[in-house]
Amino acid sequence: MNLQGELLYTGKTKQVFATENPEQVVIYYKDDALAYNGIKRAQITNKGVINNKISANIYLRLEKMGFNTHFIKLLSDREQLCKRKETVIQLEFIVRNIAAGSMAKRLGLKTGTKLSTPVFEICYKNDELNDPLINEYHAVALGLSTFEELAEIQSIVKKLNLELQNIFDKIGVIMVDAKFEFGRTADGILVLSDEISPDTTRLWDKKTIESLDRDRFRHDLGKVAEAYNEILNRLNNE
Amino acid sequence: MNLQGELLYTGKTKQVFATENPEQVVIYYKDDALAYNGIKRAQITNKGVINNKISANIYLRLEKMGFNTHFIKLLSDREQLCKRKETVIQLEFIVRNIAAGSMAKRLGLKTGTKLSTPVFEICYKNDELNDPLINEYHAVALGLSTFEELAEIQSIVKKLNLELQNIFDKIGVIMVDAKFEFGRTADGILVLSDEISPDTTRLWDKKTIESLDRDRFRHDLGKVAEAYNEILNRLNNE
Repeated sequence: MNLQGELLYTGKTKQVFATENPEQVVIYYKDDALAYNGIKRAQITNKGVINNKISANIYLRLEKMGFNTHFIKLLSDREQLCKRKETVIQLEFIVRNIAAGSMAKRLGLKTGTKLSTPVFEICYKNDELNDPLINEYHAVALGLSTFEELAEIQSIVKKLNLELQNIFDKIGVIMVDAKFEFGRTADGILVLSDEISPDTTRLWDKKTIESLDRDRFRHDLGKVAEAYNEILNRLNNE
Repeated sequence: MNLQGELLYTGKTKQVFATENPEQVVIYYKDDALAYNGIKRAQITNKGVINNKISANIYLRLEKMGFNTHFIKLLSDREQLCKRKETVIQLEFIVRNIAAGSMAKRLGLKTGTKLSTPVFEICYKNDELNDPLINEYHAVALGLSTFEELAEIQSIVKKLNLELQNIFDKIGVIMVDAKFEFGRTADGILVLSDEISPDTTRLWDKKTIESLDRDRFRHDLGKVAEAYNEILNRLNNE
């Protein structure tokens, strides 16, 4: 199936194409791997295919649960059909259940520390500023959102955290943290967008506590595609 | 008057001494000036005297307005008698009305940008980690506070921001931002503590937009003590 029209946007790991329907886009998953705000870069053969399928698998489940998402359907190995966002909220919404990555460093916590409360974070999507951690006041002062919208998103992220932890738990995986993005379609509906994959969540094998996510690339642990594929297989076989 | 007993604590710009009353301490203001987490250091003659008097002047006004503070009375040029805190909350509470300093840098805003909403920030008081910006979830996950306590403090900081802007406005000064600290006395009362002075607030002359605060030291603008003294004189003459 070839629905791809004009290239609208090239991101770090995906491209967005117009379709004949102005309310729909095709999202194409590339094999590019990036870390540390693009300082570290590589190609991981088939990563795009695997992430496209992992994300589609998870979005289908979320849609069934009643979450409003941008996902319509999987088109091919590297393509999915999604609702076009009229407004892209230039914020990243992060939820953390276990300390790792930038938060462990910021707070001086050992990676793996179980958090007594889920931690919600907002980052300003701005490459020049290195996607800084901000709070809801900064987001509103920057004109990127409103207090009402942020409260609505936070309530969705809390639910997503519970449901996704549950999905991953069933396949023997701990969801350490996850990053979400949101936007609004032309009719004003707030939708979950971007991918949900080992590029955007930290996933640890429950038995071995081994990383099955982008940390394998960040920290040169090897077997990146194998780890991503392991997640896909477990989701498919569940 | 000499109430100073055992030295309990030496901070960057102040020392805390025990008194015969276990519920009271003497806070002694030094002339040390520090910036950039202690990387830049100097002595500013009489800064301690001026800040002690500015802070006492402001705390007297806040006490009259009904705020619970640690302040009891001015003892001498460099000393004030304060309530002893049983619990020190290891957080800094910042309110910003105009973009400046670390926030302007973090968000890529020009210094002097009027914020459409007051911005509240929490920083983790931890020299090793460079007092990082955190949010309420981090504070609770670190065991430094509770959501209830943070909500109570934020409500106090909102009121302080209005009252202090008003106090400074009357002496021709814009309060750009301010940093507050809180603790609890032995009887569990939440009290505003630390100083309120040009070391902890950004104060700009309303007419000239000149800094009358620690930015004079940070950015080598000269006439540091003169600027601090200007604030004290205006407060005294009001």
